[in-house]
Amino acid sequence: MSKQNLNFKNLLQKLRDTKPLIHNITNYVVMNFTANVLLALGASPVMAHSQEEVEDMVSIAQALVINIGTLSPSWVKAMQLAGGKANKLKIPVILDPVGSGATKYRTETTKKLIQQIKFSVIRGNASEILSIQKEKIKTKGVDSIHSSTDALDYAIRLANELKTVIAITGKVDIVTNGKDTYKIFNGHPLLSYITGTGCAATVSIAAFLACESNPLIATVAGLCFFGLAGEFAFEEAKSPGLYKVKLIDALFEISPEYFEKNAKYEKI
Amino acid sequence: MSKQNLNFKNLLQKLRDTKPLIHNITNYVVMNFTANVLLALGASPVMAHSQEEVEDMVSIAQALVINIGTLSPSWVKAMQLAGGKANKLKIPVILDPVGSGATKYRTETTKKLIQQIKFSVIRGNASEILSIQKEKIKTKGVDSIHSSTDALDYAIRLANELKTVIAITGKVDIVTNGKDTYKIFNGHPLLSYITGTGCAATVSIAAFLACESNPLIATVAGLCFFGLAGEFAFEEAKSPGLYKVKLIDALFEISPEYFEKNAKYEKI
Amino acid sequence: MSKQNLNFKNLLQKLRDTKPLIHNITNYVVMNFTANVLLALGASPVMAHSQEEVEDMVSIAQALVINIGTLSPSWVKAMQLAGGKANKLKIPVILDPVGSGATKYRTETTKKLIQQIKFSVIRGNASEILSIQKEKIKTKGVDSIHSSTDALDYAIRLANELKTVIAITGKVDIVTNGKDTYKIFNGHPLLSYITGTGCAATVSIAAFLACESNPLIATVAGLCFFGLAGEFAFEEAKSPGLYKVKLIDALFEISPEYFEKNAKYEKI
Repeated sequence: MSKQNLNFKNLLQKLRDTKPLIHNITNYVVMNFTANVLLALGASPVMAHSQEEVEDMVSIAQALVINIGTLSPSWVKAMQLAGGKANKLKIPVILDPVGSGATKYRTETTKKLIQQIKFSVIRGNASEILSIQKEKIKTKGVDSIHSSTDALDYAIRLANELKTVIAITGKVDIVTNGKDTYKIFNGHPLLSYITGTGCAATVSIAAFLACESNPLIATVAGLCFFGLAGEFAFEEAKSPGLYKVKLIDALFEISPEYFEKNAKYEKI
Repeated sequence: MSKQNLNFKNLLQKLRDTKPLIHNITNYVVMNFTANVLLALGASPVMAHSQEEVEDMVSIAQALVINIGTLSPSWVKAMQLAGGKANKLKIPVILDPVGSGATKYRTETTKKLIQQIKFSVIRGNASEILSIQKEKIKTKGVDSIHSSTDALDYAIRLANELKTVIAITGKVDIVTNGKDTYKIFNGHPLLSYITGTGCAATVSIAAFLACESNPLIATVAGLCFFGLAGEFAFEEAKSPGLYKVKLIDALFEISPEYFEKNAKYEKI
Repeated sequence: MSKQNLNFKNLLQKLRDTKPLIHNITNYVVMNFTANVLLALGASPVMAHSQEEVEDMVSIAQALVINIGTLSPSWVKAMQLAGGKANKLKIPVILDPVGSGATKYRTETTKKLIQQIKFSVIRGNASEILSIQKEKIKTKGVDSIHSSTDALDYAIRLANELKTVIAITGKVDIVTNGKDTYKIFNGHPLLSYITGTGCAATVSIAAFLACESNPLIATVAGLCFFGLAGEFAFEEAKSPGLYKVKLIDALFEISPEYFEKNAKYEKI
């Protein structure tokens, strides 16, 4: 596997030196967890969802996360306001379409947000990403029913159509901007036994997006880093309670050198 | 203590093999915790509360949890929609009337939900269950002020009246469908030092409800399993921080054989 | 450093003996964490935010926490109702103006709440406290950009003006009622790598407020105790995942004697 010399050492060092502020409009289930993930990896999280303040908040942030995991109409409106403001200020925005495909409301909200906001990155599992255009696909709640490798062609087409980076996470992650495509091999199966690890992968990408102008590289870095933390944690914990604890520790402990050395990706 | 040969080994194996999707309309405080509880014990959680999608979401679930821990009018409406749809589709619904009796709003909401939705199981502490009919009883927040053994006659009467399974949890748990009654002896006092362990016991029941057509058996299984995990965790942790971590580990680690061997219940 | 013989041993014993009920109207991010903090230190938490019930709920509580971390208009209304009721019943109220100064909405809400509710204590970082009157100051999200020592004069003036206890937390905490002022030296830098430790310091104060009629003493006690737990936890954990777990354990394990012996404060 070739590494194309992506300088992840410097990128992680820059993240920790600058402690970027990441504005999250996200779901109730994972708010605490993803805030702690951001703190552990070296960023500074803020959660704010009120229409009264999201435009002000995003204006002082270096990246915006929009996650539809527990959405309702007033939150969707706040997502639109924050996303519009971020686009105007050229602050990168990442979408996590949690459970898109599982209900009509989620699928339609995802499509509406994609029409109205320019996303730098959209990250989901295969079902979620496939739901963006194919109405008929049903997901089993927030879990994927399609293998990520099946979706490669679709991802490339979608990335070109939407002019965004598409990240499909699964056993192997696929990241593409429509022109260049990477596979990512970091990760661990036990991550799927903790709620919100997909959402956490998304905020990891957001933290790198705040420090790296190429969203494709930022996405590869964010997914490699989070997946590597998942591997690192498994060295010390084999059950999901302690594993979640050690995952946070790993995000904090992994050095820039270790990250660069152990990131497992391949340009295809 | 006699065990009446309830086949908990097969039931837990079935749960883990089928990974049922459990739809939760629950309180903000415990969402992350109960999602992780469901994942650890082998089920698949989804949290969704918007009136726009709860009927769609419950339609793909194998059980629905309604928990009033941090309720507000729009959430109550969503509970009514989801509960109605679940009843129509014969998907089992469990109610956790958190804090019922502590405020008029909670007590009245509980009573309204019970009128409008057919619950397979209602689980609460003694104060919460007693509040369903006796307006005068005050609870100390979400904690019980009545011993569960006092409430046995009341539980049997209520189960018959509402044609549901009533579970009163406390030092010893009581479970009854009005005809058959079980006492459950699994559990540990340190569980009361972690927020949401009552709510977690409820989702444990929900997971078994998704795999066992007799709600009385599913409730006995869910409470035995969760209480046993509480005992198991205490082997490794004596303070609530680490105990919560080990509780999640225990839910993941307990084997079907160990469960059947160590479930402590008695038909009375 | 002189200790002025504050009897923290008896105060912590009283807290654990009486298990006061603390009503929290707080942000989504920290609800689970601060509920577990309150349980671990010996209090009993309840979270309730609906306008339909907050007045009933606060009426059975021994202290009220108002935290604006993820505010929206309907929550602000609930804060006003609960605060008004608490004032009428002489139940102490503490304000945590999370992120005040970061957005106009937060700053204006903080000012409005201070006008309408009599707070026993207001706790924030320097930026948050400075935002109460100086419109121009910008905060970096929820983190402080001002050193707490700079703010000493301002805190004393504000405490006199609002007739409340002002607590500015940072490397060294400042607590003043406008007449008497304390510095608090307990705490640990790793606390800033866990989301909600400021909010947790606030609930620690609230628990002591429920047991001690002098809000200045209660605030010193609450901050010393929480900071001491932060020190205690670092003995066993050097990374934020496990550190958070050990922090909860510490709140549970620290004895009244140990607390009194290791509280580090100074009257200035």
